[in-house]
Amino acid sequence: MPRFSSSISSLRSSEIRDLMKLVTRPGIISFAGGMPDNDLFPISEVDELFGRLDVLKKQQAFQYGPTPGLPSLLESLGEFLAARGLPTERERLMITTGSQQAISILARAFLDPGDRVLVENPCFIGALSAFKSCQAELTGLSVDKEGISIGDLDVEANSTDPAKLLYITPYFHNPGGILYSMERKRRLVETLAWKDIVLIEDDAYGELYFYEEDKPHLKPIKAENPEGLDVCYTGSFSKILGPGLRLGWLLASEEIYERCELIKQSYDACSPSFTQVIADEFIRSGQIFPYMERVRTEYRKRALLMGDILEATLPTDVAWTRPRGGFYIWLALPEHIDASEVLELSLEDGVVFVIGKTFDPQGRRNNTLRLSYCNTDASQIERGIPIIASAIKKVMNRY
Amino acid sequence: MPRFSSSISSLRSSEIRDLMKLVTRPGIISFAGGMPDNDLFPISEVDELFGRLDVLKKQQAFQYGPTPGLPSLLESLGEFLAARGLPTERERLMITTGSQQAISILARAFLDPGDRVLVENPCFIGALSAFKSCQAELTGLSVDKEGISIGDLDVEANSTDPAKLLYITPYFHNPGGILYSMERKRRLVETLAWKDIVLIEDDAYGELYFYEEDKPHLKPIKAENPEGLDVCYTGSFSKILGPGLRLGWLLASEEIYERCELIKQSYDACSPSFTQVIADEFIRSGQIFPYMERVRTEYRKRALLMGDILEATLPTDVAWTRPRGGFYIWLALPEHIDASEVLELSLEDGVVFVIGKTFDPQGRRNNTLRLSYCNTDASQIERGIPIIASAIKKVMNRY
Repeated sequence: MPRFSSSISSLRSSEIRDLMKLVTRPGIISFAGGMPDNDLFPISEVDELFGRLDVLKKQQAFQYGPTPGLPSLLESLGEFLAARGLPTERERLMITTGSQQAISILARAFLDPGDRVLVENPCFIGALSAFKSCQAELTGLSVDKEGISIGDLDVEANSTDPAKLLYITPYFHNPGGILYSMERKRRLVETLAWKDIVLIEDDAYGELYFYEEDKPHLKPIKAENPEGLDVCYTGSFSKILGPGLRLGWLLASEEIYERCELIKQSYDACSPSFTQVIADEFIRSGQIFPYMERVRTEYRKRALLMGDILEATLPTDVAWTRPRGGFYIWLALPEHIDASEVLELSLEDGVVFVIGKTFDPQGRRNNTLRLSYCNTDASQIERGIPIIASAIKKVMNRY
Repeated sequence: MPRFSSSISSLRSSEIRDLMKLVTRPGIISFAGGMPDNDLFPISEVDELFGRLDVLKKQQAFQYGPTPGLPSLLESLGEFLAARGLPTERERLMITTGSQQAISILARAFLDPGDRVLVENPCFIGALSAFKSCQAELTGLSVDKEGISIGDLDVEANSTDPAKLLYITPYFHNPGGILYSMERKRRLVETLAWKDIVLIEDDAYGELYFYEEDKPHLKPIKAENPEGLDVCYTGSFSKILGPGLRLGWLLASEEIYERCELIKQSYDACSPSFTQVIADEFIRSGQIFPYMERVRTEYRKRALLMGDILEATLPTDVAWTRPRGGFYIWLALPEHIDASEVLELSLEDGVVFVIGKTFDPQGRRNNTLRLSYCNTDASQIERGIPIIASAIKKVMNRY
C-alpha cells in the first residue's frame, strides 16, 4: 500500500468516537454531548408535513438536486435569514451537509498546507478538525465573557505572517457558552478591516436565545456588511429541526461561493434532497417558529436549573457564567487543577462531561471543562451536577 | 481577501451545472442526466415504511449518528453486501454521503498535490473532480469492450513514478456502459499485485444487470480478496433507492478505514440519520429486492428500445455496443468527428446528451458521446434518438 497523504498525520485519533463510547454507557448521566434532546425533536410536525407532500415533492426528495441546494429551500431559508438582516439577496446562499461541511469547504477553499488559521481558545472541535485536515497551523486567541481578545487579534492582524482565516462562534459559543458583546464585535471588525483575513462567522446556536432583550446582540456581523472584510456566514438546522437531517448553510460573496460550489460538488455532489424537502416545508408551514420557541423555553429551564445547582455546590474559586442561550456552561477551575482528574472521579459516580483540552487548538489547557444541559432532563441535572461539584472539591483538596 | 488555496485552480468551472441548465430546459428530450427516472422511485414503499417507524427510530432519524453510520444500517447493508461475497466481516464498512463522498474521502486519504492517479478514459466525472480537488495528476488508460487496457496498466504498474490509486467502474461503466470480463479483472489483479497502487472499485450500477446469466461477471474484485492488492470498494443507494437520500458506502481494510473515518468526521461529522433509517428499513423489510427487479426490468426495456433505434438509424461507422445493465450507451464516431457539432445540431431539434470530452481526464477526446436511457420514456427515446442519428449523419457529411 502507498503511504497515506500528509493531511492524515495532522488528524488525531477520533476523540469524538471515544467520547461517544462513554456517553452511551448504559445508566450514565452525560453532560458531554452537544446534541439536542431526543424528546424535543418535532416528530409529529414532520410526520404531518411528510404526509401532506404531493407526488412531485416526493419525487424531488428522492432525486439529485442542484449542488447549492433545492431552489425552494434556498428561497424559504433565504427569507428566514433575511429576517435576521442577512444579505441573502446581495450574496449567495448554499445548502451544505451540516454546517460542519460549510466549514470544511471553506477550509479547503482557502488553506494550503502550513497556512495559518486563527481560532478562539477554546474552539468548536469540528472546526479544529476541518482546519487540521487541510494541514493548517492553528493559533488560539483567548476568549473572555464578551468575546475574543482584541489585543491578541490586533497582534495577529498586523503579523508579518498573516493568517488566512479567523473562525468565531459569537452566539452562544461552543464550548464557552458566551454571547459576544456588540462592542467586541465592532472592535473585531475594525481590527480586521482591509487585512486580507477572511472571517468565518459560525452561527449554529443563535436561534437558541433565552431572553428577548438579547436580540440586538444576535445581529450577525454578516448583516452589518462591514467594509473591507469578507465574512462567510455559516449556520445549521441541527439545533432548530434536527442534526440527523444533515443540513446547514453558507452565505458568502459570489466570488467565494463559486469556489465553494466546485468543492461541494467534489465532496458529495449535493446535500440530501429528502431532508431539504422536509426543512423547506418546516419553514414554509411556519412550524419552525413555535418549535424554536418550545426548545428555547426548555433549554432555558435546564440552564437555569443547572446554574442554580452550580451556584449552590461549586467552590467559589471556580469561574463560570450563566448562559443566555445555547447548550453549554464552561467552568474554569484554578490554574493548577487538571480536569481529567475531575472526570475520573465523576465517572466513578456515573457522570461524564468533556474536559477542556479537547477544545484547545494545541490540546494543552486543561483546567477547564464543558457541561451541556441540552441532553439531560431536570432529574439528571439534579443528580449529576452535585457529583461533579463534589469531584472538583475533592481534586482541589489534593493540592 | 487572501488568495484561494491552490486546490481551487485545478477544478474547472462547473460543467455539471452548465449541463443541468440544458437538461432542465422545458420540453427538451434529455439523454444527458445520469439520474434515475422520477417515476420509478419507491415512493409508496417508503411512505409505508416511514409510517410504520416507531418513536425510537424516528428520534434516531433526527439525531446525530456515529461517523461511520447507524449500527442497524451497517448490519443490514453488511448482510446485503455479504450476499454478493463481499468481506463485510473481515473488513470495515462505512456509510458515506453518496458514493461521491467515498471517492472524495479516499482521494483525501491518499493524495498529496502532484500525486498520480490512474483512471479509465472515459471516466466518471465525479471521480475526476474528487481527484482534481486534491491536485492529483490524472492519467487516463484506454478502455475497450472488456475493460481497461492491461498493456497500458502494465506500463503504469512498472513506472518509476508510480501512481497511488487506480479508479475503475467495472460494472456497467459510466459513461462507457461496459461490463468488465472476468478474464480482464483477473489480469488487472495480476498486474497490480504487490505494486503499492490502491484499487478503488466503484460499483454504483452493479445491481442494475439486465441478464441473470451475467451474475458471475458481477462478482466484485473485492470479493476475491486478491493477495498483494488493497481494494477499496464503493457503492451507492442512488440507483437502488434514490440519490436524494445521499447514501453510499465504502468497504476497506481496517487501516484504510481508520484514516477515512477521521476525514469523514472533518467533512460532515456523519451522513444523514434520517435517510439511513429509511434505507435500513428498505433492506430489512425486503422491499429492496422486488424494487431492484422492477427497475432492472424497466431499464432493460428502455436499453433494448434505444438499441433497436440506434441499430436502425446510426451510420455503420459509429461504434457502440448494447448495454447489459446500467444507464448508458457510449457512441464512438469516426476519429475526425467532433461530438460538439453533433450536440449543436441536436439541440436545435430539442435533444441533449453529454459530449465525450467531459469524461476525458485531459478534456480532449471528443469524437464520442454518452446517451442515457435512464431518464427518458419510450416515446422520448423514439422521438429523440433519430434526431441524434440524423445530426451525426449531417456532421459526418460535412467532412
